[in-house]
Order: sequence, then structure tokens, then C-alpha cells
Amino acid sequence: MLDLKHYLGIDLGGTNVAIGLVSAEGTLLHKDSVPTDSHRGYQAVVADMIALCKKVAADSGFTMADIASIGIGSPGHCDNARGVIVFASNIGFYDVPICDLFHAAFGIPIYLNNDANCAALGESVSGAAKDAPSSVTITLGTGVGGGIIIDGKIMSGAFGGGGEVGHMSICFDGEPCPCGGRGCWEAYASATGLIRQAKIAAIYHPTSLLATQYDLRQLNGKAVFDAADAGDQVAQDVIDKYLRYVAIGLANVINILQPDTIVLGGGISAQGDKILRPIEALTRKEIFGSFYTKFVTATLGNDAGIIGAAMLGMDS
Amino acid sequence: MLDLKHYLGIDLGGTNVAIGLVSAEGTLLHKDSVPTDSHRGYQAVVADMIALCKKVAADSGFTMADIASIGIGSPGHCDNARGVIVFASNIGFYDVPICDLFHAAFGIPIYLNNDANCAALGESVSGAAKDAPSSVTITLGTGVGGGIIIDGKIMSGAFGGGGEVGHMSICFDGEPCPCGGRGCWEAYASATGLIRQAKIAAIYHPTSLLATQYDLRQLNGKAVFDAADAGDQVAQDVIDKYLRYVAIGLANVINILQPDTIVLGGGISAQGDKILRPIEALTRKEIFGSFYTKFVTATLGNDAGIIGAAMLGMDS
Repeated sequence: MLDLKHYLGIDLGGTNVAIGLVSAEGTLLHKDSVPTDSHRGYQAVVADMIALCKKVAADSGFTMADIASIGIGSPGHCDNARGVIVFASNIGFYDVPICDLFHAAFGIPIYLNNDANCAALGESVSGAAKDAPSSVTITLGTGVGGGIIIDGKIMSGAFGGGGEVGHMSICFDGEPCPCGGRGCWEAYASATGLIRQAKIAAIYHPTSLLATQYDLRQLNGKAVFDAADAGDQVAQDVIDKYLRYVAIGLANVINILQPDTIVLGGGISAQGDKILRPIEALTRKEIFGSFYTKFVTATLGNDAGIIGAAMLGMDS
Repeated sequence: MLDLKHYLGIDLGGTNVAIGLVSAEGTLLHKDSVPTDSHRGYQAVVADMIALCKKVAADSGFTMADIASIGIGSPGHCDNARGVIVFASNIGFYDVPICDLFHAAFGIPIYLNNDANCAALGESVSGAAKDAPSSVTITLGTGVGGGIIIDGKIMSGAFGGGGEVGHMSICFDGEPCPCGGRGCWEAYASATGLIRQAKIAAIYHPTSLLATQYDLRQLNGKAVFDAADAGDQVAQDVIDKYLRYVAIGLANVINILQPDTIVLGGGISAQGDKILRPIEALTRKEIFGSFYTKFVTATLGNDAGIIGAAMLGMDS
């Protein structure tokens, strides 16, 4: 029977709060956003979120009575069972009982999970891993995020903090990471890591295109790929090594979890097959026993987090 | 209602095949073993296994008609769904349809899984992780094995080869591993790794107890701990660094899976709290967000594999 329920999904980000109306099939029907402005404190942010929920429903021709549940994807560490954002440093939320606050406003089921887990659930329900019972979605952006889906459900660990693949160490006593650890995958495989590697290479190779044609103070990940495309061997060498860093972490994830599908998302994945196929080949060389896991790029972009958050109600 | 069924569990090892009769509560009631002698080929080994199943049942006062199911824990890569040992290099088994062979002999349900997964299930059912819904059992022996239990069930990945934590790289381009990879956790955190680290330290410190009082050609893990206990600072430094290698891999496992409980087994864990507490403290320093996972040592020893194999029937 067709499920005619509708769900709201919230992507609580450092810059914006995006809210979408999502069908039971995981289709995003309408979305809207407001600036987070988290410096105002969580009460003001939550009030804006509640108002935007009503607006998104109304603009879609619904009332809140038509909404089956609301799901919230939050950065940081979430206690999903209690519905509390334990800490989300980048928006200054500490011990915020967000599900209680939303439940008081709407009286319907409210779900909470980490934003990377929500993005993984979104890709699993209606994105790149739609047909895979198990998948791991890795986001290569400013940091490296990860979400694990097993049998269609988020595997968030015993205390809601699992899936932190970005902070797995791939280099004993290696590069320092903002988390306080050393050698974290994120320190190597994020866009931030790529840019650092490119800047260091430019210092060692002052006549390279990278050093002469680009403003190193404003270097971004795309510029490194552009320099390589323009024939700069130094930039190409940086990318080749960067892809090996990405691959070693993916191999670790596959050795441990062996999902049906690996989904690569985030800014770096915009390079598409140009990086996906080398990453796949490099990863397969490092995997212990599994040659079956599929490699795909994310298809939902920023909407994955909204859709996945909405689908927390289906997932529960 | 009390489950009065009984199960047979088989631990197919490189040296011996051990078979036990196990109650529905996971209690090992009786066990026996025969040498594997795998050089004879799989047909002879399987014939011995089938004969020993009958003997173990008979010696316990049962017939095979009283046995609900048989579970087999095998080294190497198993296709659990098809019941085939795909490859187990150390016993020379390649594409052995072991479940079909057993089913032809007994006509009851036959289950197959990797031996490390079986050991983890055993510890989960009636061992050190008995009260934990999720646990990861890590065996620090000649190699590093791992088994992941989530909601009381083995998480063996989409294709039966998950849980290979020993082959996660903790050191980019690091020590070579017999698997062909580099920097594998197993290359550092196994007894083999500890012994190599101790031998190298002895070369650099020829006046140390380690170099002067021990036969380096026959060094084992216990000797390194003994030398440290006897006051050798060189041996102590080797152990301190070895425990950090153990900890970094455990932190990776917890960052990804966040189980309720980590169970440490294998020869090294015989050192008990003397290594468990330092490992726990070192690991907690490396974990990203979880401070809740408990650390315990395995309690079932070699019986864990038999009990877990038997419990595959309960798990299915």
C-alpha cells in the first residue's frame, strides 16, 4: 500500500538551517532555509527552526497535523536515545534537549541523529546506495564525515557516537588533527589536508604552476585539480598521494564493515569518475579479502542530510 | 521456557579440530579434539570432523538426533550464505562446500562463519561480553583477529568478510604484513609484532637484559614482559610502545563501531589487568567522542570458538 505520510527533515548546519518536506519514498518535495546565527544561543535557533517547520509545511499546502514526524540532523555528538545534542562545538550547543523542545511545540515524534549519519541514510533511502542493504557514505569536505547503514538502518554505536571514520588514525603519531589526535584520516583525506599537502609541495617546488600561478593563501581543493589538469606534475603528484590517503582509509572501512556500497560525497567528489575510479583501484589493492564492494559518488548533494533526517522516522 | 536443545560447535584450527557439545545457554558440556593434519586434503579432514561429531554426541549420552544444528568456525574467508570455505590458506582449503558435506552426513542445519567471528559470538553469549548488546572481541595472538557483535549477532559484512580489523592500516606505508599490505595493525599489535619490536630494541641495546639474558632466536611475547618485570627498561620501553600500537587500533575500532564492550583475548591478554588497564587508558586518550565503552579480558579462552560456532544456530 502506498505510504501517504509526509515527514520533515532538518539539516542543522553551522551556516544555515535547511528544512524539507519529504515523502515516504524519500523524495524531497519542498525545502527552505534560514541562517543559523548560532551566536544568539540555542533558544533563538530552535525558535527559528520551529517557525520554519510550520512555514515549509504551509508553503507545501500542509498543516503540521499532516506531518508524521520530524527528524533533526545535527553536527557534533548526539544522544539519539534521549534526543539531546550533547555537544556541537561549531554552533555552541551543549546538552540541548532538542527533541523535548520540538515535541513540546508539535506533539509528534521527533528524532535526532548526527548529520553525517543522516546524509548516509538519505543516500541509502533514495540516493546513490538506494539498492544496497548496507552502505557507508564518506564525505570528503572540510573534514571527513562518515555514516554507516546496515540493513537499511543507521549504525550509530552503543552510545550514538559511532561512524566517526574521519578520526580513525591511518598514521601512527602522524599529522595533528583539530580533534586533538594525531594521524587521523581527516587530517590527510579532507580538502583541508589536500590543500596543506599542496602548499607544502609548492614550497618545495617554487617553479611549479602550483607555486607560480595560484595564490597559495587562498588555495582550494579544486585549484589543485585544475593545476594538475593544466599539466603541473607537482600538483599531479600531490593528488596521486592524496588519493592513496583516501584509499587507505576506505580500505580500513571495508576491511572492518564490508558494506555492499561505498558512497563518496563532499566537495572533492565533484571531480566525479576522475577521482572515483583511481580511488576504487587504489582501495582494492589495499583490501584484505573483499573484492565486491561497489564504489559510487553521492547523488543527493546537500539534500542528503535533509532527506535522511526526515527518514529517521521511517528508520525507527 | 527453558530451551533444552543442544548444539555442536566446531573450531577448525591449523593444528587441531576441536568439537564441543553446547547447551542453549552457551555452556560447553563436553569437548574433544583430533589433529587437523590438513596436508591430507579436505576430504580426510572433513571425514574426521564428521566422525568426531558423532563421538562427542555419543560420549555425552546423546545421538545426532538430539542435536539441533552444527556450527563450524573456520579460518580464512568464508561465504557464510553458501556455506563454503572460499580460502583458508593455512589449512589448504579452497572452495570447500563444507556445509553441504556436513548436511549430507547429518541432515540437520549446518552453519559456517569465520573463527574470529565465532570466538566473538562465544564471548558475547556466555563469556566476557555476556551482558553487552554490542561488543568487539580482539584476539592478540600470532596475528590480530576480530569479531563484531551488534545486537547479539555477528556483523560479518555484505559478503561474509567483515571484521578484519587486523588488516586495517594504522601506519601509512608502514611495516609489511603477510597479507601483502603495509602498516596493518596486525603487523604492530600481534605477538609477532611485539617480538620483532623487542628483537630490534635488543640489537640497539646490546647490554640490556633482553639482549643478554634471552635467546632472541626463540623470543616469545611472555619473555618481553618477563624482562620488563625483571627491571629491564629497554623491554619496558618496547612494551610501552607496543601498548600504544594496540591502543591506536582499538581507538579506531571504537571511533567507527562504538560497541558497549571491547573484549581482549589471545595469548597477550594472559597478562590480564597489567596490560588491560594501560591499554584502556591509552585508548581513551585517542577516542574521538566515546568515553563509555567498557574494556574486559576474554573469559572463555580457546572454548570461545567452539561455543560461538555452536551458537551460530541460535544466531540464525
